[in-house]
Amino acid sequence: MVAPIAAAAGAHVAAVLAEVEAGLRTTVAPGSGALPDAGRASLAAGGKRLRPLLAIVVAGSAAADPASPARAAVVRAGIALELTHTASLIHDDVLDASPLRRGRPTTFASDGRAAATCVGDALFAAAFTVLVDGADGPGPVRILAEASRALAQGELVQRGDAWQTDLDEQRYLARCELKTSALFDAAARLGALAAGEDPDRFAAFARALGLAFQLFDDVLDVVAPAEQTGKPRGSDILDGTATLPLLYARERDPELAKLDLRTVKNHAAAAEVCDRIAATGATERTEQRAREIVQEGLATLPEGLDDARAGAFELMARGVVDRRL
Amino acid sequence: MVAPIAAAAGAHVAAVLAEVEAGLRTTVAPGSGALPDAGRASLAAGGKRLRPLLAIVVAGSAAADPASPARAAVVRAGIALELTHTASLIHDDVLDASPLRRGRPTTFASDGRAAATCVGDALFAAAFTVLVDGADGPGPVRILAEASRALAQGELVQRGDAWQTDLDEQRYLARCELKTSALFDAAARLGALAAGEDPDRFAAFARALGLAFQLFDDVLDVVAPAEQTGKPRGSDILDGTATLPLLYARERDPELAKLDLRTVKNHAAAAEVCDRIAATGATERTEQRAREIVQEGLATLPEGLDDARAGAFELMARGVVDRRL
Repeated sequence: MVAPIAAAAGAHVAAVLAEVEAGLRTTVAPGSGALPDAGRASLAAGGKRLRPLLAIVVAGSAAADPASPARAAVVRAGIALELTHTASLIHDDVLDASPLRRGRPTTFASDGRAAATCVGDALFAAAFTVLVDGADGPGPVRILAEASRALAQGELVQRGDAWQTDLDEQRYLARCELKTSALFDAAARLGALAAGEDPDRFAAFARALGLAFQLFDDVLDVVAPAEQTGKPRGSDILDGTATLPLLYARERDPELAKLDLRTVKNHAAAAEVCDRIAATGATERTEQRAREIVQEGLATLPEGLDDARAGAFELMARGVVDRRL
Repeated sequence: MVAPIAAAAGAHVAAVLAEVEAGLRTTVAPGSGALPDAGRASLAAGGKRLRPLLAIVVAGSAAADPASPARAAVVRAGIALELTHTASLIHDDVLDASPLRRGRPTTFASDGRAAATCVGDALFAAAFTVLVDGADGPGPVRILAEASRALAQGELVQRGDAWQTDLDEQRYLARCELKTSALFDAAARLGALAAGEDPDRFAAFARALGLAFQLFDDVLDVVAPAEQTGKPRGSDILDGTATLPLLYARERDPELAKLDLRTVKNHAAAAEVCDRIAATGATERTEQRAREIVQEGLATLPEGLDDARAGAFELMARGVVDRRL
């Protein structure tokens, strides 16, 4: 799905993504710091590089010239975004004691709690080192710092709400805004700043994209087999995290409404709860909500946008709600 | 001890420290983010504010005028340094499962592992937000990011060396450079930048000060009663951290040289090990080493320094090795 988006956004996008990859490798290269192999592996295992891609698409043709300051700025932004995202995942895995992510052992699993905590801290710091080099003014650092803080606060809210199932949709969405939308928002702002555009220009769309992405992620945790997601179904249930599919399902299924998540002790039991959630139609309703959110996001895009960006945003919006991203 | 240093460094220093305190309170004020009370308490409980003090002393009379850009810059630096230091302590306490620091429950103890991890992350991020506001160029952020990374790497090295007692002094000092000197170095650089001076000017002295401070901290863990340090003796032993007093003592006491730290299971046993270490004269030897280091640091100070700074640096150097800081 990334390839068609990159193609729509312009011939340069694939090259910029490759520069971000190369930069990530350099940042965590042996000798660049005492990062254990697992930290490096976690970053290399990668993922969709969705946040760098968003920044690159937002920057548009301004970053097409490899020698332009805009190109350098958006590459730095992409590296910093992915370092921050990876750091945040590594810390989340520590707190969830997660053995697997993307089908591979987490840093927590391979190197232990302490090393994973330190590696996360080191990657958070490295993101600022990368971002500030050659930055034109305090804007980029301020954006990244605010997003990093939002990630931590989102995680804090999620932990505070752990094992509680009587949350309303509003509180769930507010948590997702912190946990996920904030870094999408930062991607859009950094991309726009790199291109010399108003940083607010695509931020509302980016937040909507992030929110829809999180909703679909939460649906996948209920319905998708481990082969697809790289982790067993029902991980959220086992962590005590009530997501929107469960909140919706509780409205339809009185047994689920009464369920104490603490009594769900293993993956088999969690999978059964997932089946009950799916049986209520709650996952379709969550998908529908994600589609509405992303449509509202598309509606915030400025009029008269160039075809390249308009097309790429449309593909990203579709990719997020068609579960291809 | 802080008061005489502040007095020596200039009449403005106490006022700048007060501005740093006020800034810290504002940064973590309720409503400024989802910081739980414990995070706030941990920051308010404070400590000696040694890193902000160092930055302020380095900035010298350039920061005396409350309306000057140098004053604003050094206040931001002080806040950012203390946020980073506190974040790092909160994460260390999580990894050590420490119940007490400075005689109060740690964030880990009061709010749990997950909240403490998130609060640390949020404070690390907040430091960058504070520092970048009004910053003149990328220098300050680069300095703080490098120091943050060093703190994480130092912790990583310490964890990697856990339970190993056959380390040499070189490796111990290299770890202290990362864990402690790096943030003292950052304080000196940020202070010098605020004053428009060469950031390297006092950095070697600051690193030496940090190193000596750490050596004395490690001596205190062996000899000082809990009433003085706010935590029981021998915490390092129980965490499996071999510090210089133990390394020196192992050279003199064959029983200590054979000791497996994993067999030391409680505070009473750790206190016994501390007594054995002290009986070898290893703590005095460590203190002597710290005095040499700080003397070497003083020797790096530029000639012809103004009396205010020269006097304050001398007091800081003495305070660190006389265990008054």
